[in-house]
Amino acid sequence: MKALTTDDCDRNDVYAAACPCRDMLDLLANKWSALAIGALEDGPVRFGVLKNQLQGISPKVLSSTLRKLEEHGLVDRTVFAEVPLHVEYSLTPLGKSAGAPLAHLRDWVEENMTSPV
Amino acid sequence: MKALTTDDCDRNDVYAAACPCRDMLDLLANKWSALAIGALEDGPVRFGVLKNQLQGISPKVLSSTLRKLEEHGLVDRTVFAEVPLHVEYSLTPLGKSAGAPLAHLRDWVEENMTSPV
Repeated sequence: MKALTTDDCDRNDVYAAACPCRDMLDLLANKWSALAIGALEDGPVRFGVLKNQLQGISPKVLSSTLRKLEEHGLVDRTVFAEVPLHVEYSLTPLGKSAGAPLAHLRDWVEENMTSPV
Repeated sequence: MKALTTDDCDRNDVYAAACPCRDMLDLLANKWSALAIGALEDGPVRFGVLKNQLQGISPKVLSSTLRKLEEHGLVDRTVFAEVPLHVEYSLTPLGKSAGAPLAHLRDWVEENMTSPV
């Protein structure tokens, strides 16, 4: 039996609603994903540090964002059995690769926003 | 009186919650904005054509997406006084410029999604 999702999707096409790549676009074309992946570019970061860096994010939304990035193979989660227990997040090779277009987007926004006079 | 939004924002920084550029990131780091701007890259397009191209979008969400892009100076809306009346959307120079990082993101997604075996 053929999977339903491939019926309308002979090649990856983000414009096709049924293409599995639409999910990945939905995940990455998101403010918090774009900021989280950028914050992980220089190496593993703890949850609390990420939360401070992504100003305005709630712990719940940060957890959910990181979980989705992990499910899509972009982020690794490592638990250190220390006291107190701590958790670090890092980019997988796929996550590092996704970092390039997201950095392009963040840079464009920072360069093209004219500050209010 | 100094505007509140500039208090924490000496330079554009998408990580700062109070930076006005956070709004622009929120707008552009969005699946439908990324698809709509891509669909307008080759010239003006009518609402109905856009709706068909952005598979799965509702008329309400498409209207809202286009209105926000217009408010941020990325899209122009032209009404033609014909019978039946029709409306075309096109990219402004700023919208064309934003097209580059969004194309980068769409291309990355299409190239890096491995199809299910």
